[in-house]
Amino acid sequence: MVSVTLLSPSGPERRDDARTAHASVSGHNRSPMSELSPPSRLLCGPGPTNAEPAVLEAMQLPILGHMDPDLQDILLEVVDLLGRAYGASGELVLPLQSTGTSGMETGIASLVDPGDVVIIGVNGYFGARMVEIAERWGAEVVRVDADWGEHVPNERLLGALDDHPGARLVAIVHAETSTGVEHPLAELGAQLSGRDTLLMADCVTSLGGVELRVGDWGVDYAYSCTQKCLGSAPGMSPIAVSERALQRFDARRTTLPFTFDLRLLERYWVNRPATYHHTVPVPQVYALHAALTGVVEEGLEARWERHRAAAARFAQRIGAGGLELLADPEHRLAPLSAVRVPEGADGAAVQRELLYEHGIEVGGGLGPAAPPIWRVGLMGHNANEATADRVAGALLEVLGRRSSN
Amino acid sequence: MVSVTLLSPSGPERRDDARTAHASVSGHNRSPMSELSPPSRLLCGPGPTNAEPAVLEAMQLPILGHMDPDLQDILLEVVDLLGRAYGASGELVLPLQSTGTSGMETGIASLVDPGDVVIIGVNGYFGARMVEIAERWGAEVVRVDADWGEHVPNERLLGALDDHPGARLVAIVHAETSTGVEHPLAELGAQLSGRDTLLMADCVTSLGGVELRVGDWGVDYAYSCTQKCLGSAPGMSPIAVSERALQRFDARRTTLPFTFDLRLLERYWVNRPATYHHTVPVPQVYALHAALTGVVEEGLEARWERHRAAAARFAQRIGAGGLELLADPEHRLAPLSAVRVPEGADGAAVQRELLYEHGIEVGGGLGPAAPPIWRVGLMGHNANEATADRVAGALLEVLGRRSSN
Repeated sequence: MVSVTLLSPSGPERRDDARTAHASVSGHNRSPMSELSPPSRLLCGPGPTNAEPAVLEAMQLPILGHMDPDLQDILLEVVDLLGRAYGASGELVLPLQSTGTSGMETGIASLVDPGDVVIIGVNGYFGARMVEIAERWGAEVVRVDADWGEHVPNERLLGALDDHPGARLVAIVHAETSTGVEHPLAELGAQLSGRDTLLMADCVTSLGGVELRVGDWGVDYAYSCTQKCLGSAPGMSPIAVSERALQRFDARRTTLPFTFDLRLLERYWVNRPATYHHTVPVPQVYALHAALTGVVEEGLEARWERHRAAAARFAQRIGAGGLELLADPEHRLAPLSAVRVPEGADGAAVQRELLYEHGIEVGGGLGPAAPPIWRVGLMGHNANEATADRVAGALLEVLGRRSSN
Repeated sequence: MVSVTLLSPSGPERRDDARTAHASVSGHNRSPMSELSPPSRLLCGPGPTNAEPAVLEAMQLPILGHMDPDLQDILLEVVDLLGRAYGASGELVLPLQSTGTSGMETGIASLVDPGDVVIIGVNGYFGARMVEIAERWGAEVVRVDADWGEHVPNERLLGALDDHPGARLVAIVHAETSTGVEHPLAELGAQLSGRDTLLMADCVTSLGGVELRVGDWGVDYAYSCTQKCLGSAPGMSPIAVSERALQRFDARRTTLPFTFDLRLLERYWVNRPATYHHTVPVPQVYALHAALTGVVEEGLEARWERHRAAAARFAQRIGAGGLELLADPEHRLAPLSAVRVPEGADGAAVQRELLYEHGIEVGGGLGPAAPPIWRVGLMGHNANEATADRVAGALLEVLGRRSSN
């Protein structure tokens, strides 16, 4: 377990406010009827990003029952749109009602029996989480490590596969949200072509923001989330599962928890007439439909280019101000830029000032293994040059003011 | 796997519409930019119910990052409010970002090691699902069955415990959504007092609508959902876990999947400073906060009485029209009334007419084991006598018209 660089309220007034709020909740002094009034923030951390306006509107549509024929039609539309966003060609595609991490765990649980060898590339927090989860499931994990900010070279993954030719799965983080590094996934997929080993990819910060074609690239299991480059609200984990991964699923030696049973989900989301499985989170489904409609309307390539241009503008601006990115240019992940905290600066204090004085959220390093960085996300609605300018300008302003004090 | 009585579109026109929609989605003739326009329905099936207006409004509030100090305060408020709704006294209370069934599975997974004896009362679909899940986890399941529509007498559960004194867990459905039967849970809790066996209860259709006091009653693990008597949107599964259940969790012999690890969730939802775990579904959290604020503002006992009065009115109205409820009066579940389909009537056809001509959703029987019933939910916002009148009136009108044709 690791802890993150947590923002604590900036000034003494705010700290008192927070303390009072807690005390009153537990002491029942604050009326439980108080309405929430969360502040408006520009969300440029590792996600969630600010949802598209159409997404927020969609969550106001009338809720339908989970077995209503009209809702069943909507589910199929979501599946269709999601397949296009994933670049799927016949994969089983659907959004889990779960966290992204449960999307990760669904893949491990579905495809790996205890004792199976799993090769995992680890160059940040989420690769390490894959290892933790695979070990919980009894996999024999072969780690291929690289430093945070580096990518894991495919030749090293293939070397591990040469050492363990019976490996069930190679798992890699396509978009390492903790470091801003993109993995050369297309190349890895091509290199694994014709092998019996499955390929799993963490696409949490790539789906909708970075080139991704699970069909062409031979990705057998991909998982993502809704609140980053898709620009929807947090709450679901879209997955894409290849036909051979489903066959592998059908041939498991061990019984799986209900929650991770892909075939049961398929019978509800895709097969018609549907078999009751659970009550889908209807407003989230509407939100995802709206977000995916936006993705398809914009066009995938235009959307990837928009994310790329925003990241380039941000890199140029902070570079001109003397700051450096963690990742090398060749493997930089457009939607998430990890900026090195310069020598002598207090990264957490800068984050707080950005939050409370500029209304801008950026992330810090994730976990004790993280180098001193800020994580700046320009995703979905926020992936544009004006937002890049605003965030870079605020960051440089805060840093400049603090160093001149 | 079972299938439900699925509504199919009523007339040939509607059926054509649906077919066209599918064909055009896959054939790309329908613009992917089409906005959704789901019809407005009065949701009086087994849930979801229509969300409270304040709930829908709350989902429009600005999204905050999952580690934002302001959001952290809101999470603690949700925990506090939820504890009151559950009648908790020191339990770990939080909403899972999952389905109700995953809430069920989290309990089984957390508290049961393979080979442990689990006594499960089964008098409907969800008791049977508990059995399926416990078996997936390698439990030795002792079923105590009763007919659908009956309750499982506590003396029979205690008899099973006498036969299996080392049983780890007794699991029961407090509110059987498939039959409209309420279990005498307070009595069971009292009878198990002083024993080493844990008590788990499915409170999916009771939390916020029926008397429930997990602290006083000694319930060790309760799970529910947000879209029924709480009147929020679907998407989360609130749980309450006793201290001794957590101790049992800590003493497990086997490793648990990440998704079901209660201690990790506690570190994010309850402990401060929080440890990063996942991105909470922020609009759903706001929605739940609004719904729970409504529950506390109304008062639990007034809310339970409102659900009781609505159900009594509905029973009186349909009784006067010659219809019968499945459950005996002593064990009727107020939020969900299962109405017997009279001899000769086409239950599914009546459902369709209610849906398409009256805009009212009611449920059918769940699964092939179900007797011919309609399931009518008067939950949350819809638990009032005017709605009871409207649904009963529409049901009797459709039946009368069909029988006179």
